Amino acid sequence: MAAGRPQLTLAELAAAVEERGAGRLAATIEGDRELLIEAAAPLETAGPADLTFLANIRYRNAVATTRAGALVLTAADNAALRPAASVVVCEQPYAWFAFAAQVLHRPAQRAPGIEASARVDPSARIGADVWIGPAVIIEAGAEVGAGCAIEAGSYVGRGVRIGKGTRLYPGVRVMDECTLGASCIVHSGAVIGADGFGFAPFAGTWIKIPQTGRVVIGDDVEIGANTTIDRGTMGDTIVEDDVKIDNQVQIGHNCRIGAHTVVAGCAGIAGSAIIGSHCQIGGAAMIQGHITVCDRVAISGGTVITRSINQPGFYTSIFPFMTNTEWERNAAVVRHLRELRDRIRALESRLGSAPDNKDSSR
Amino acid sequence: MAAGRPQLTLAELAAAVEERGAGRLAATIEGDRELLIEAAAPLETAGPADLTFLANIRYRNAVATTRAGALVLTAADNAALRPAASVVVCEQPYAWFAFAAQVLHRPAQRAPGIEASARVDPSARIGADVWIGPAVIIEAGAEVGAGCAIEAGSYVGRGVRIGKGTRLYPGVRVMDECTLGASCIVHSGAVIGADGFGFAPFAGTWIKIPQTGRVVIGDDVEIGANTTIDRGTMGDTIVEDDVKIDNQVQIGHNCRIGAHTVVAGCAGIAGSAIIGSHCQIGGAAMIQGHITVCDRVAISGGTVITRSINQPGFYTSIFPFMTNTEWERNAAVVRHLRELRDRIRALESRLGSAPDNKDSSR
Amino acid sequence: MAAGRPQLTLAELAAAVEERGAGRLAATIEGDRELLIEAAAPLETAGPADLTFLANIRYRNAVATTRAGALVLTAADNAALRPAASVVVCEQPYAWFAFAAQVLHRPAQRAPGIEASARVDPSARIGADVWIGPAVIIEAGAEVGAGCAIEAGSYVGRGVRIGKGTRLYPGVRVMDECTLGASCIVHSGAVIGADGFGFAPFAGTWIKIPQTGRVVIGDDVEIGANTTIDRGTMGDTIVEDDVKIDNQVQIGHNCRIGAHTVVAGCAGIAGSAIIGSHCQIGGAAMIQGHITVCDRVAISGGTVITRSINQPGFYTSIFPFMTNTEWERNAAVVRHLRELRDRIRALESRLGSAPDNKDSSR
Repeated sequence: MAAGRPQLTLAELAAAVEERGAGRLAATIEGDRELLIEAAAPLETAGPADLTFLANIRYRNAVATTRAGALVLTAADNAALRPAASVVVCEQPYAWFAFAAQVLHRPAQRAPGIEASARVDPSARIGADVWIGPAVIIEAGAEVGAGCAIEAGSYVGRGVRIGKGTRLYPGVRVMDECTLGASCIVHSGAVIGADGFGFAPFAGTWIKIPQTGRVVIGDDVEIGANTTIDRGTMGDTIVEDDVKIDNQVQIGHNCRIGAHTVVAGCAGIAGSAIIGSHCQIGGAAMIQGHITVCDRVAISGGTVITRSINQPGFYTSIFPFMTNTEWERNAAVVRHLRELRDRIRALESRLGSAPDNKDSSR
Repeated sequence: MAAGRPQLTLAELAAAVEERGAGRLAATIEGDRELLIEAAAPLETAGPADLTFLANIRYRNAVATTRAGALVLTAADNAALRPAASVVVCEQPYAWFAFAAQVLHRPAQRAPGIEASARVDPSARIGADVWIGPAVIIEAGAEVGAGCAIEAGSYVGRGVRIGKGTRLYPGVRVMDECTLGASCIVHSGAVIGADGFGFAPFAGTWIKIPQTGRVVIGDDVEIGANTTIDRGTMGDTIVEDDVKIDNQVQIGHNCRIGAHTVVAGCAGIAGSAIIGSHCQIGGAAMIQGHITVCDRVAISGGTVITRSINQPGFYTSIFPFMTNTEWERNAAVVRHLRELRDRIRALESRLGSAPDNKDSSR
Repeated sequence: MAAGRPQLTLAELAAAVEERGAGRLAATIEGDRELLIEAAAPLETAGPADLTFLANIRYRNAVATTRAGALVLTAADNAALRPAASVVVCEQPYAWFAFAAQVLHRPAQRAPGIEASARVDPSARIGADVWIGPAVIIEAGAEVGAGCAIEAGSYVGRGVRIGKGTRLYPGVRVMDECTLGASCIVHSGAVIGADGFGFAPFAGTWIKIPQTGRVVIGDDVEIGANTTIDRGTMGDTIVEDDVKIDNQVQIGHNCRIGAHTVVAGCAGIAGSAIIGSHCQIGGAAMIQGHITVCDRVAISGGTVITRSINQPGFYTSIFPFMTNTEWERNAAVVRHLRELRDRIRALESRLGSAPDNKDSSR
């Protein structure tokens, strides 16, 4: 979001970052400690009042030509590159830069208050220093914690509880009885707590199973634009602390997403799937329902997970792309892989081969 | 959704379910007919005032330890498991339980009326016992049937017709001239009747084809959060009775979805595809445009359907997932399947093999 | 959208199309120049006051039976088919028909004005002949160009600039500082300028990178319902002129989409991907981040692009669909393709074969 931009000296900025990092982001400054910094910027476009960093050693040539006022580098990169700019030397340049960017680019704050066109039920409890935007609806019994911002047109259902300092961007909808923790960010168009997808077959039609559970979201969770998280059928859908969910993600009823897991855009997690903590789910990945993925699993974008994963690791299921002409030639063979394997086996048999017994496809 | 919770005896509940099932859900009660039931709950967490059921014989061990007051079982399972709780014995426990849960968990009802901040065009016709929430817009010539609930911030375009007892959750948008049947449920953020995606190429640019058709939706249809159903280019997009569509599904212009078909989350159905009745489209499946899928087809989640399907059955197109290391080894070979087949053929030729003539990959 | 329908003679319609085509859509009329035309319609359902066209030579049999008053055809098709109806003969029937349909089906226009329930910040600049619908929010410093329509419940953030003649359908959200060009169409539920997905790892948690860039959208861009386009991290996300984006597409931070490219529904383009001009991205295709796709690339629906593409062409990565039973047989072999290749190689080695050296899978 657009941000107010304070001017800080590099030394002041370093002090602010060190405070945020709780002592784990110590840095030394080489160069002009009094340099005024206005903004965080990419290597290629940074100017004399900008701070930048080296994200990837592949871009090290850009360090030689950057016009940035200051750079965040590891000691090793600093020694190797010897840039002309002032340098913040630290062990984790990306994290240091992230905190510095947060200091430089604070989200615009609204003055607390309730816009005239908002409709807040008298039984709702609104904390101190809350901003409630135009056309917002807060239903009966809802609780909105101190310092929250509920932006234009958002909907907070009956009995919803929202922790301190959480921000709902315009047009977020949180349905009845769901809860969000503190310091969450929910982007426009997200829907939290719509009914899960549950129907019993009966006489050729579908009988709706009432979805009586909730969505329970922890602290420091970010939820992307137009993402949907369904309420539980019976029992709750749970998103633990520090989970980061991108845009247009679908999370089905009764899922549990473990702490610190990130889910990239367009991913789908079907009902009752249990995802561990510290996982990374790639964009447009699809995880079937009723399976378990253990902690510290990474899944490639576009991958379909059809069974539980019990070993940490990196998993993929992408048909490699090729020109359509090549694809037509190769895809036709995919339909006959079993026969090909059998023909190889027959050839081996005729020649008396003894193939590797580890080949479980036999 | 959160629900009022009546207390019923098990016998009263059985009578209510039998009435809903129109005589096809007869059950006998073994145990305490006067047991008070408050809620439907899962086997694992159900307590003495809860009703539960056995969804899958895999969970039969949980029957021994459940604290549930009452269980819904088939006669066979009841005989085999002999649970301590009271038992409702019937032929279709899942359907029986679904109806019972509907009785126990009725959606919260709003008192009929029109909120002050709603804007209803004077030419719109609003039936009896309708609730129209805050910031709702009802445009000229729209018709809203008796007993409907149009929740906060929803939009009902010009000439839209909505049948009796249909519920639009907050923030649903139904564009001009579209129609919904009776007893439908549409979840937050769904968009019904946006323009289809149609452009003619001309001189290196794209010329928009006006999308002049409608979306026509039958009775008892459920549409998930943030799902989109486009209006027809010329002629209509049609969703027949009792179709159940999950969240974030995209249905293109001029599609037809047959009665009783279910479409799971994140699926995409491209323009002019015709899907039969009683189909089951898995999550994130993608169906290309201008093809036909016959009745009673099931499609796995993550599957891409590129041609018409004329035989009922279960279809799949998933690259199996594996560790990324294994995937790199195997995916490289996919690019050369045709050559591998040719090398097998060459080997067979040298050895004078006579492979099975049914192998059409030759 | 529903449209007012003028009555024009075929000659008047041809003159209107020729004017729109800037001289590149000349046509000759064979038959009744004074025939009154009311609507564009498909071959199968067109009546005597309708104009239709032949989209595909496969449908030529329908020309013999159509009841349409007038047909748009190439000279060759007209000579071959000799229809009974009046004929507009031109070189590009589809483009001619598209323009004619635009003439016949103009979108319903609102009388300019600002609805009472809209909240327009006094510092916003609103051009001439703008319509601002109910419950719309226009924030401080925003600029809305002449002739725009901002429909019910839409949100235009601080400092947003919108060019002339652009239409936001109900419930569109454009976040702070983003810009849209002239003559754009944005469908309901689209979110332009939500935060990109950027976090730095630190001590087991995720540190948010402020997303300080914008979304910059050119002229004549169409954006589908519930599509999301994220703002840049630092620097902007760019969508060039005449790009057409379907529903439920996700475009990540710092992407650039080249002019005249079309992106079909449910596609996902991850952060920092650069897509050329005149590309066609199929439905539910997924393009990984930080890669480049050159101009004039077509990508099949459901395809995953994992590396940059430097050659124009048509690319695909779909596992071919089959019955689930066949799939289980064949997918099991996919996990062992490398071993199969090695077994073939071993057989060749024993027989002294000399396979084609071009086979890079060796």
